[in-house]
Amino acid sequence: MPLSEFEIIQQIFKQQKVDRNDVLSGIGDDAAITSIPEGHELVLAMDTMIAGVHFPENMKPKDIGYRSLAVNLSDLAAMGAEPAWVTLALTIPQSNETWLRAFASGFLTLATQYNVQLIGGDLSRGDLSITIQAHGFLPANKKLLRSGAQPGDLIYVTGTLGDAAAGLISWQQPEQSFAYLKQRLTRPTPRVEVGIALREFATSAIDVSDGLIADLGHILDASKVGAKLEIANLSLSLAICEKFDLDQAREMALSGGDDYELCFTVPSRKEEQINKLANLCQIARIGTIEAEPGLRCLLPDGTHYEPARSGYQHF
Amino acid sequence: MPLSEFEIIQQIFKQQKVDRNDVLSGIGDDAAITSIPEGHELVLAMDTMIAGVHFPENMKPKDIGYRSLAVNLSDLAAMGAEPAWVTLALTIPQSNETWLRAFASGFLTLATQYNVQLIGGDLSRGDLSITIQAHGFLPANKKLLRSGAQPGDLIYVTGTLGDAAAGLISWQQPEQSFAYLKQRLTRPTPRVEVGIALREFATSAIDVSDGLIADLGHILDASKVGAKLEIANLSLSLAICEKFDLDQAREMALSGGDDYELCFTVPSRKEEQINKLANLCQIARIGTIEAEPGLRCLLPDGTHYEPARSGYQHF
Repeated sequence: MPLSEFEIIQQIFKQQKVDRNDVLSGIGDDAAITSIPEGHELVLAMDTMIAGVHFPENMKPKDIGYRSLAVNLSDLAAMGAEPAWVTLALTIPQSNETWLRAFASGFLTLATQYNVQLIGGDLSRGDLSITIQAHGFLPANKKLLRSGAQPGDLIYVTGTLGDAAAGLISWQQPEQSFAYLKQRLTRPTPRVEVGIALREFATSAIDVSDGLIADLGHILDASKVGAKLEIANLSLSLAICEKFDLDQAREMALSGGDDYELCFTVPSRKEEQINKLANLCQIARIGTIEAEPGLRCLLPDGTHYEPARSGYQHF
Repeated sequence: MPLSEFEIIQQIFKQQKVDRNDVLSGIGDDAAITSIPEGHELVLAMDTMIAGVHFPENMKPKDIGYRSLAVNLSDLAAMGAEPAWVTLALTIPQSNETWLRAFASGFLTLATQYNVQLIGGDLSRGDLSITIQAHGFLPANKKLLRSGAQPGDLIYVTGTLGDAAAGLISWQQPEQSFAYLKQRLTRPTPRVEVGIALREFATSAIDVSDGLIADLGHILDASKVGAKLEIANLSLSLAICEKFDLDQAREMALSGGDDYELCFTVPSRKEEQINKLANLCQIARIGTIEAEPGLRCLLPDGTHYEPARSGYQHF
């Protein structure tokens, strides 16, 4: 007999190790009740993941659970916020206990790692879809938005780009040598610690979900500036270089989405602050903000490069 | 040409009259930033509505927008919270401007009425589904949960019950005489003002979404008590009595969901406080909390009554 909604919540999703002091009433009432630490603001990010649209239908439930939370924590990271609690609206075709336990295990593993408590949500019947709202804290007046980039600021990006797009293209490849790229798609690392450090000195930030060109474009639009991007400075993974030729890898690094790395800008006088982040992850300086609107991509020989496509179109 | 995601957000959902001081950064970044008034706690409710599951596929988009928000504000009401902001995860089969404008109009009409600001969300492509998270404030230590009912407390319910279930059964009836019942399904009234008043003296509350028997059952389970329900005291609308025989109307009032009225308990010594709510809406005293577990439904002649079904089963 399939588990009822009540049993799913009690036996699967309430089995979480995190028990935060600021959660005054969690799962099980009409709504949750929480408190915010004094002197802090609340940051709220919401993302929906639909099977067959945002991830391959046959992705493992454990990975779906992990990834759904990761992309939301990534949004908090891009704001410089420290994650606190999440709510989960889970729509599933039927009550399948094995699937649900695997999904919850991936989800709760990542939640526990960041001391994030699941405080509520909704469970519905329908095509597989996951909407998560993540909540985090930011000390007052430490906002890290898309709109603060200034001409002369340096542009950085964490990690390597293009891997998730390469993982998606290789999704049906059975060889073990594609495992790293596929894992970059299924288990993105939310750059939470980097985001928290950045709020002290970065002028803008965004997470790379639609592709670098598109997401850096959002910073440029919001900040009313332009940029020069030095393509040679992009970091590529060994795996993508082994499996794809350089032109393909470059396209995926520029226009492929789903890496959930952070792209951010820093005033040039604060450049040395970046060194302090070196212990958290690899960070590449990829360009400069300019007053002239538009994005100019430069190849190492100084010639302009026009990317083939410019990011994921939702409609 | 269909509107892009950016255009939908800018041209339709950002056209809202509400502009709250506690929203520090709203729609348009990786996440929203807000502040909570001092001495207050945050209440968070999340609900998903799926076409064909939670509402008829052919419900008007304006009504879908209104109802989706109403059911979330109803959850806040059941906690005694004052609504503040919402996020919206909207999944639509295609970018249809007419549909989107109608949906947003219903949604924003209700939002404006309660000074609720839309601060973010996500827009995806897929079968029609709406997940909303509503946020409200509660003064510290004014929690109104399901778990506070005590033996001897009186049980009340706002408004009339069964109308939404009757509206659903009559959904395909073209006659104007069914309009009231259908409107109770499409445009439920969140009992926000009643909820805010109740937090001062009620011991428990819930909103009636799955049916009175089921939802009162949640209060009894959470409070570890039982209850006697006097069926003759239930309020029925004139419309339901005109269109259905009394047995059917009684069943719908007891087991039909979607009315979004509040069911709550009050210590008998505070009974007179209920009179102060009379200007807000009709309130009926329908029973008494008892120490003995279980729910006993009594007919006017004192005989026991067994409802035919006990609420909506999600799985």
